[in-house]
Amino acid sequence: MRRVRVRESVAVTSIRATILQTPAADRLEVSTDRVVRVEAGRIVGIDATGDHGGHVDVTLPDDVVLVPGFVDTHLHAPQWPQLGTALDQPLDRWLFEYTFPLEARFVDTDLARRVWDDMVPSLLRHGTTSVAYYGSIHEDATLALAEACASHGQRALIGRCAMDHPEGTPEWYRDGGPREAVDASGRSIEAIRALDDALVAPIVTPRFVPACTDAALLGLAELAAETGTTVQTHCSEGDWEHGHVLERCGVTDSVALDRFGLLRPNTVLAHATHLSDDDRSLIAERSAGVAHCPLSNVYFADRAFSARRAIDAGLRVGLGTDVAGGPSPSLLAQCGHAVAASQRLVDEGDPAARIDTTTAFWMATAGGADLLGIDAGVLEPGRWFDAVAIRLPAAAQWDDDWPSRFERLVRLAGASEIERVWVGGRQVV
Amino acid sequence: MRRVRVRESVAVTSIRATILQTPAADRLEVSTDRVVRVEAGRIVGIDATGDHGGHVDVTLPDDVVLVPGFVDTHLHAPQWPQLGTALDQPLDRWLFEYTFPLEARFVDTDLARRVWDDMVPSLLRHGTTSVAYYGSIHEDATLALAEACASHGQRALIGRCAMDHPEGTPEWYRDGGPREAVDASGRSIEAIRALDDALVAPIVTPRFVPACTDAALLGLAELAAETGTTVQTHCSEGDWEHGHVLERCGVTDSVALDRFGLLRPNTVLAHATHLSDDDRSLIAERSAGVAHCPLSNVYFADRAFSARRAIDAGLRVGLGTDVAGGPSPSLLAQCGHAVAASQRLVDEGDPAARIDTTTAFWMATAGGADLLGIDAGVLEPGRWFDAVAIRLPAAAQWDDDWPSRFERLVRLAGASEIERVWVGGRQVV
Repeated sequence: MRRVRVRESVAVTSIRATILQTPAADRLEVSTDRVVRVEAGRIVGIDATGDHGGHVDVTLPDDVVLVPGFVDTHLHAPQWPQLGTALDQPLDRWLFEYTFPLEARFVDTDLARRVWDDMVPSLLRHGTTSVAYYGSIHEDATLALAEACASHGQRALIGRCAMDHPEGTPEWYRDGGPREAVDASGRSIEAIRALDDALVAPIVTPRFVPACTDAALLGLAELAAETGTTVQTHCSEGDWEHGHVLERCGVTDSVALDRFGLLRPNTVLAHATHLSDDDRSLIAERSAGVAHCPLSNVYFADRAFSARRAIDAGLRVGLGTDVAGGPSPSLLAQCGHAVAASQRLVDEGDPAARIDTTTAFWMATAGGADLLGIDAGVLEPGRWFDAVAIRLPAAAQWDDDWPSRFERLVRLAGASEIERVWVGGRQVV
Repeated sequence: MRRVRVRESVAVTSIRATILQTPAADRLEVSTDRVVRVEAGRIVGIDATGDHGGHVDVTLPDDVVLVPGFVDTHLHAPQWPQLGTALDQPLDRWLFEYTFPLEARFVDTDLARRVWDDMVPSLLRHGTTSVAYYGSIHEDATLALAEACASHGQRALIGRCAMDHPEGTPEWYRDGGPREAVDASGRSIEAIRALDDALVAPIVTPRFVPACTDAALLGLAELAAETGTTVQTHCSEGDWEHGHVLERCGVTDSVALDRFGLLRPNTVLAHATHLSDDDRSLIAERSAGVAHCPLSNVYFADRAFSARRAIDAGLRVGLGTDVAGGPSPSLLAQCGHAVAASQRLVDEGDPAARIDTTTAFWMATAGGADLLGIDAGVLEPGRWFDAVAIRLPAAAQWDDDWPSRFERLVRLAGASEIERVWVGGRQVV
């Protein structure tokens, strides 16, 4: 996101707080009583309180801690009105009978604006400071999403969804052909860049192989390369998708995406539950990674994703809510689901698959930011001040050490514990 | 709970609301704009608004609905301070290194009172109007729990936990022998009954077979029969417990409990993830049932419980948080986890295992009340007015029918949407 520019209004210049964060996948860092200095939206210094002589703008209370803002690496914006419904359907029926009809309605840009103005502030209240959004196929609704993020103050990668396959999409909701899929995506990139807003950037978004023709996939890869834009798509979500790609392309989804040219640095592959060792090596080699959507996977992926294996293999890994395939907009909730998913893999015979709350939180912050290629996810000099002030949940009263308090926070906190949220130094909640 | 008497203070006499409830496992009942009339804590009539002439005490706003209070059929009260921690341990280590040391501290009745005064109001705020509690082995702390429920206004079955096995329990936290296990349990029953409070009743609580000697299990069964008290215990939670009982008794946990005399009407078996068809037939024949704890099972049970099979076999089935084996005190959250658990069974090859939010909600209300043998769980004349007023989650703005709103409510609502809670006609939140 090199194109991001500094916003004019930055309210915070110094904040005193205890910081909990996970700069590495297996490391919780506790920094009690620090002063974070912010200039032009970025952190310029973090001092021990004693070393900081001057005025402090904000001092958090003792039961409120500062953590990096949460990064949602996979969310379908036009599915926001569907949140929490129709989760008892297999993926193909869910798409054709519920999701595509809803997304098709976003031809109505007024409806889109109404949804974005509900969704973006709601996500911010959950502490989600950055999102990789899938839009619908509509350029206007997609541009309106970028405008909503800019106006509400959320960092976002925004992708107009491309889908042109005459079998994998319904007649009433698809691009007219590969040319339209690519051209409309290109115009959408230009329109979002023309906003010239520090927070928003476009991302090339072929929905997934079953929804796109080979020509569209090739064209979108060229578009990404020509425009220097990153890519997001779905990969091996469940048996159905995995099987489709194997049959159509004769190779796994990862290999197919790579042959189309879509496996680029920071490419975000959603789900990826069916990865072989070779797939993992390939994705790591391309500096790409996975949006791990543990709650959605429960309903639609028919198996759990091994975050442990992916991290160990050197993939970038973040967490995604996959709204509305996942019925919760909370990244903290995803942390619990990520640990649960790893426990399921342990039950299924892979004792090394277990991850803990530290690794889950890392995916929700530093790992996600690294996957999306944004300078956030860790509170340290040089990065954006994207941060959340969270009140410790009541159960933390029984703790006498910070690692336990951190575990309570990840397990038990939700939107009602989130007191303030900053993005690029600007307080947005 | 025939012994329950009517409380003196009952504030509500009529309330106007739309009622959502599940009188049967597969049936959602929507009753728009009704007036519920309450006398002496029980519902005496539910009228269509037009048929109700007189004054109404409370009218719920249009975006707030009335549902039956939630029934938590399995919760370890002294593990409340452990909520959300140490979930990455196998069950035996979790018990000996974390849970037993914590429970042992409840020899300090002041600590116990402090925990109960935090826990009971917190559970009420989550809409939990009835709970089947496990206490610690301490009679005083257990009595204090009954007093706290009576004073905060929560309906509860309260069991002093009996555990005397020299191998299955630590030296520093066990009953002195089978006689003490039975005598102390008997004294606890008398003390709770002596409170003479309409809301609280005792329940005989052998922890589980691995923690109890044969003599204690036989003696506790006799105690239950003699005193007319129901029973709760754990059954076949995971491989470890299941294997222990098979080896020690030569039969499954259900059969062993039946031979000890503990499988009685309304006996609450927690977890029961390893049931055979014969086990299910036996439990159904005894009019007993299962406290399904789907979130806890993710961490400690190594497999999912099939609610569908249990309901179809005629078992009573309720939901349990299993605090602190389960890190959430919310029964609504358990509904989502119950659907997820059923989806896991589908993934594992049992397509008939799927349940939906209606069935999950039925377990959280009517099913749980039936399991515990209390006159609640459905809002209908003759039953206690144990009820929750919940604001529909914001996403319900996109719905135009009640079944969809109901699904949003179950999926997305939490403590922050709960506006009022009544137990036995008395408003407690």
